[in-house]
Amino acid sequence: MQRKRIKYPAYLERIQTPEAAALLIKNHDILGVSGFTKAGDSKAVLPKVAQRAGHEELKLTVLSGASLGYDTDADLAKNGALYKRMPFQADPTLRKSINNHEVLYVDQHLGQTAEMLQSIDSFKIDIAIIEAVSITKDGYIIPTSSVGNSPIFTEKADRIIIEINTKFPESIEGIHDIKFLKKQPNREIIPVVQSDTRIGVPYIKIDPEKVIAIVFTEVPDSPAIISDPDEKTKAISNHILKFLEKEVDEGRLTESLLPLQAGIGKTANAILSGFKNSTFKNLTMYSEVLQDSTFELFDSGKLLFASASSITVTESCSNRIFQNFEKYKDKLLLRPQNISNSAEVIRRLGVIGINTAIEFDIYGNVNSTHIGGTNMMNGIGGSGDFARNGYISIFACPSISKEGRISHIVPMVSHTDHTEHDIDILVTDQGLADIRGLAPVERARLIIENCVHPSYQGQLSEYFEKAYKLGGHTPHIMDKAFSWHTHLKNHGTMKMAE
Amino acid sequence: MQRKRIKYPAYLERIQTPEAAALLIKNHDILGVSGFTKAGDSKAVLPKVAQRAGHEELKLTVLSGASLGYDTDADLAKNGALYKRMPFQADPTLRKSINNHEVLYVDQHLGQTAEMLQSIDSFKIDIAIIEAVSITKDGYIIPTSSVGNSPIFTEKADRIIIEINTKFPESIEGIHDIKFLKKQPNREIIPVVQSDTRIGVPYIKIDPEKVIAIVFTEVPDSPAIISDPDEKTKAISNHILKFLEKEVDEGRLTESLLPLQAGIGKTANAILSGFKNSTFKNLTMYSEVLQDSTFELFDSGKLLFASASSITVTESCSNRIFQNFEKYKDKLLLRPQNISNSAEVIRRLGVIGINTAIEFDIYGNVNSTHIGGTNMMNGIGGSGDFARNGYISIFACPSISKEGRISHIVPMVSHTDHTEHDIDILVTDQGLADIRGLAPVERARLIIENCVHPSYQGQLSEYFEKAYKLGGHTPHIMDKAFSWHTHLKNHGTMKMAE
Repeated sequence: MQRKRIKYPAYLERIQTPEAAALLIKNHDILGVSGFTKAGDSKAVLPKVAQRAGHEELKLTVLSGASLGYDTDADLAKNGALYKRMPFQADPTLRKSINNHEVLYVDQHLGQTAEMLQSIDSFKIDIAIIEAVSITKDGYIIPTSSVGNSPIFTEKADRIIIEINTKFPESIEGIHDIKFLKKQPNREIIPVVQSDTRIGVPYIKIDPEKVIAIVFTEVPDSPAIISDPDEKTKAISNHILKFLEKEVDEGRLTESLLPLQAGIGKTANAILSGFKNSTFKNLTMYSEVLQDSTFELFDSGKLLFASASSITVTESCSNRIFQNFEKYKDKLLLRPQNISNSAEVIRRLGVIGINTAIEFDIYGNVNSTHIGGTNMMNGIGGSGDFARNGYISIFACPSISKEGRISHIVPMVSHTDHTEHDIDILVTDQGLADIRGLAPVERARLIIENCVHPSYQGQLSEYFEKAYKLGGHTPHIMDKAFSWHTHLKNHGTMKMAE
Repeated sequence: MQRKRIKYPAYLERIQTPEAAALLIKNHDILGVSGFTKAGDSKAVLPKVAQRAGHEELKLTVLSGASLGYDTDADLAKNGALYKRMPFQADPTLRKSINNHEVLYVDQHLGQTAEMLQSIDSFKIDIAIIEAVSITKDGYIIPTSSVGNSPIFTEKADRIIIEINTKFPESIEGIHDIKFLKKQPNREIIPVVQSDTRIGVPYIKIDPEKVIAIVFTEVPDSPAIISDPDEKTKAISNHILKFLEKEVDEGRLTESLLPLQAGIGKTANAILSGFKNSTFKNLTMYSEVLQDSTFELFDSGKLLFASASSITVTESCSNRIFQNFEKYKDKLLLRPQNISNSAEVIRRLGVIGINTAIEFDIYGNVNSTHIGGTNMMNGIGGSGDFARNGYISIFACPSISKEGRISHIVPMVSHTDHTEHDIDILVTDQGLADIRGLAPVERARLIIENCVHPSYQGQLSEYFEKAYKLGGHTPHIMDKAFSWHTHLKNHGTMKMAE
């Protein structure tokens, strides 16, 4: 039964157990592994590699599409298997190892990793480990629920291990659109002109000679855990819908808007869910990850087409969509992340990018990655790819958290991932600030008025007005710019004593 | 004689004096004016508008390509004629007004202004003032030494004033390549596949009915003042050449490299001049401004072709090239700045971007705009367009200045214009750090070792090692992050007391 998924007979003799395949990895190897926002990752071999590291010396560099599923990153970190990790992670154990300097982490724009691999050779990729739903008659890979960086990894790798995951129905074949981009000066135009433009083939073309092992698994993707929208995320969603409705009313957008992108997580999912009950029609997505909300929008008839690099959904959503896959198949494309997140396509299509922030400041700079300026949370992911080149770049976060001890709008962000130059709209549960075409002092007053929680408005106005008196295009009191962060650290709250 | 430059007879009766044309501007108007890095700006009408403001109330919003020439920005600012200015300036008087909050300034990516004008309508452009070398038989504009944002300004403007500058020879007709990009969702592919790909027409198509005045001038462009390379800029240039030679030797680039971009100013010009005596051949440029160094490279036979949005050269260079224009005409193209600075093209061609920094930090974040975190210098210009999407993104600055009282490498930049995610190479007179694929702590050690002046290495290592002990992916001592800047402000030097 399993073998019928391999239409290239020469691979049959390369079938191994995950344990045996894991033994092919050597100390100091550089691995390129499939997996993007938990979807389509290695669930057989890489966990066994992590286990090996529990009782022998293994220091690996692991490149992925984005985050991996289950406890793979945790186990790799816990057993000391990681020398370096990139371009993204979202695991609490690995995060701790990164912040303790046990693991080197390179936090990269998700659209940029393939570019880096083409331009430098310090990451040569010893072994690629790629999840597949099946193998074509030419020995090529049909990926599962993500494409990520798998095309560039298999291209650059000396050897390839393929994991065939029979949990995915073979019927997903056809949803992938794979195009390999040549290195400059031979880089071609990426001719995507609409979300649904197909430019490639539905498989990853590889050199079959590189394949050193095939393993089978039937472990499903780690399910996404998404809590229901709460009052804050609902308020954020409403503010965004209201803003977009105004853009339509005033003739700047049509009721089908422009292709939507939404980051991963509860807030982004809630925002997108909100479109179900909106006045918009015939929506499209050009995004990096499709969450439950995408399928809700399909079911509600609001969404026509969605392009991304992965499908990351809850268990119930996964069961529903993969059992009725014909219903969605013509409405989806999964692309390599250097195409889903390509500056060229994002700008051409005019993507409306909606991403979440850890904090933003009164001038519109955004911190997406670091807690208190030093500790990595997850990583920048694709937010910069979309924010920098999108038609409208929106960042959202709650105005306050921890019972008001933290304000997510601060005098100066403790780490800058997106600069004032790249941000159009900032939104919290309190309201929305449209900072397009505004000078810094105009931005500050609008953001304080519209986005900041009332319990912090006075304190933030006071900072701004004092700074304003000191002068400067972007007024700051440099020795107090991080005083809210240090006050939080020392006193457990950003609220200064009255 | 002058009139022979107007091949569209209906314009002849609209010829006016600059003084009369200046009277067509009304209080609160939004002006879109030609001019990019001093080249091709309004030299007749806008200075008269500035004069008017000396004795009557005029509060204008002025959008340009980039900086204007002579004292135009200074006079506008001095006479209180500016309500808002964007997307770039480089004038000491205007800078002062911006930092004093007398003028609102929107510091924008130069590639983004046209996008903004298409997506919002708060800047509707009342009058466009555009310098031309001549008028075609259909009433269209042949620009002079820059294209900048003139196509979008004339498209969006209600009325147009044209300045015909007879100082430029009519023979420059043909060097412009103008393509107007449609608003999304109808945005087309920008089919530039090499620096020399022509995609448009050599004139700006306008509606002749909008033209309300034509004036004549023969004032040349403000000459660029470029001091000779000094020891520091020569050292920087040599480090960059050595790095690129290594890339060629190790097979990552060919001896014609990839298209070069260089920012404006002494350092960038000196760096590019250095290529004259390099081992590279058949170079090309895909840049925003062409300085003297470009023509030196043409003359030395090193450079095959250069695409940009303007020609900004010294007086002697200007005389030389415009008197021998046939020699250069086939080797040049001037494009609108949303194409010269287009993310799509920059990434496709694989541009090597070389820009200057005010300061950078131990993790590779770059400040291009603000002195001491608050005071605007010039603006981000096109540096972000190229840095974000280039093949290799290089930032250069001297290691120290003011007799060593300032270190240009600091613990944390006081303003972030380019994040750690977008920078590949940092270079000073001391040396070069290739930070591609490195984690923050690896970057910090390399930057301190290679780029920092010996007189600051100890102090910066001490900061980093203390921060490292506190932990975190990006180690910082948050309440000391700007201590070098505040020490400079309070004690006139960044050197702490021993």
